[in-house]
Amino acid sequence: MAVIYNKIAIIGMGLIGASIALASRRAGLAAVMAGYDADPAAMADVASLQLVDEVADTAAAAVADADLVIMAVPVGAVGAVAKTIAPHMKLGAVLTDTGSTKRSVLRDVAPHLNESIIWLPSHPLAGTEHSGPQAGIAHLFDGRYWIILPLDAPESAVLQFESFITGLGSVVERMAPDYHDKVLALTSHLPHLIAYTIVGTAVDLEQQLKNDVIRFSASGFRDFTRIAASDPVMWRDVFLNNDEAVLEMLQRFSEDLSYLQRAIRWQEGDKLEDLFSRTREIRRSIIDAGQD
Amino acid sequence: MAVIYNKIAIIGMGLIGASIALASRRAGLAAVMAGYDADPAAMADVASLQLVDEVADTAAAAVADADLVIMAVPVGAVGAVAKTIAPHMKLGAVLTDTGSTKRSVLRDVAPHLNESIIWLPSHPLAGTEHSGPQAGIAHLFDGRYWIILPLDAPESAVLQFESFITGLGSVVERMAPDYHDKVLALTSHLPHLIAYTIVGTAVDLEQQLKNDVIRFSASGFRDFTRIAASDPVMWRDVFLNNDEAVLEMLQRFSEDLSYLQRAIRWQEGDKLEDLFSRTREIRRSIIDAGQD
Repeated sequence: MAVIYNKIAIIGMGLIGASIALASRRAGLAAVMAGYDADPAAMADVASLQLVDEVADTAAAAVADADLVIMAVPVGAVGAVAKTIAPHMKLGAVLTDTGSTKRSVLRDVAPHLNESIIWLPSHPLAGTEHSGPQAGIAHLFDGRYWIILPLDAPESAVLQFESFITGLGSVVERMAPDYHDKVLALTSHLPHLIAYTIVGTAVDLEQQLKNDVIRFSASGFRDFTRIAASDPVMWRDVFLNNDEAVLEMLQRFSEDLSYLQRAIRWQEGDKLEDLFSRTREIRRSIIDAGQD
Repeated sequence: MAVIYNKIAIIGMGLIGASIALASRRAGLAAVMAGYDADPAAMADVASLQLVDEVADTAAAAVADADLVIMAVPVGAVGAVAKTIAPHMKLGAVLTDTGSTKRSVLRDVAPHLNESIIWLPSHPLAGTEHSGPQAGIAHLFDGRYWIILPLDAPESAVLQFESFITGLGSVVERMAPDYHDKVLALTSHLPHLIAYTIVGTAVDLEQQLKNDVIRFSASGFRDFTRIAASDPVMWRDVFLNNDEAVLEMLQRFSEDLSYLQRAIRWQEGDKLEDLFSRTREIRRSIIDAGQD
């Protein structure tokens, strides 16, 4: 694959930032890659793993001369990062992020932009329960959607950015901020909240029962613990910043759960079986959509 | 491996029954295997897949001369099956089941037992979201726990049965009925109920949003749909028959979820981060316990 940006800078070298570096190198998408992370321990890992060509001392140094700047930090930190780097960015450079909540990112980044920055928020629908530079994997984005919010960026810049994303292995999809936050609230944020809750419920059990819950963690619970092992700071920020959509979906979920709870209490098997049959159909749709 | 029972009979040839047949044959644990399923279509599959040596016309015919009889049916059906087969079982034969709710199984089977039957309820902690004879896999039980409730069975019979279970690939664990139902309520039943609920919430969304939820099912939701694709009748029966323990765990879960909901509404990030950090530890414990 041809070089798409001469220099890219990645601010935040955790699971996502490190995976972008590895996937970009795999496809030769950038002539030079610079990386920066606010955590010195992470920076040491980035250096020893040789994830980027330039291990920068500051975020400002990383973005100098970069044609594409990627903020791969928790959504609660993206405003501060934008404020720090915006004055040091090259004229006409593209700025993107990888956050899970787009309305809050737009709100937090907007005050720090200037006319010479092409702002193109985005969100890769990919991840694992691991964190940090050493969690990066070159194939993390292969075949996964990467949502782009073109806003008012010039179409040529959007297309160039989409080539880069496609080069990382992803499938590009354009979306509006409000709709993005609603879809993600149900597909990602609420499931994570539920998984955190149920694993948290286990944490509070008396010791013997807790030990046996861990020991005999059958398929349901075991899957939930994997989800509930995701990065605590990243997810704290997601819930604080997509609170409106998450609370709305949570309300619907709670109503539906009460309905099933009542059906169990009153031994209404037909209601349970009816729902369980309908949910099976959704699984088939997902397999048909090639998202499994 | 040596033959452990001369003849075994499997009543209910779904995912679990078919997998027992395949795993037993793999290890040569029975000289003869008979199988029966109340569903004619399943029986046709059993015959064409040649899962057992004797495809029986009735449950009574299947259990004749069997040294071990396994009821691998939904827990709501186990009482009726026991009633049908008990009078036809060989003197001193072992009767077991594979149900997820042990208190209800004990209650439903007890009235139909006679003195010549050695009753040894059990529960393999294994499964997939697929159903029916064609879903059977020989290695389904490899390395997975299989819980046994010895009750008042002679120790020699328990040990022989445990050899059979070990021969299927499982790790044997003895447990009391009440404790079993409590542990399973949290590790398996509640996670399934939650997964069914959240996928059900998606079913009720307006069409465009629902389509996109399916299309962009990021990691959280996709995992839930797999769980929520499990057999509807089996799971209906689980909830109806472990209602007490499930409702108790559900109450705890709802309280914990309300706590997080409130933390999101009031932007209390420290409470979220604190819980999310503690749940990550549970995951480590499960990996350390070798249950991943």
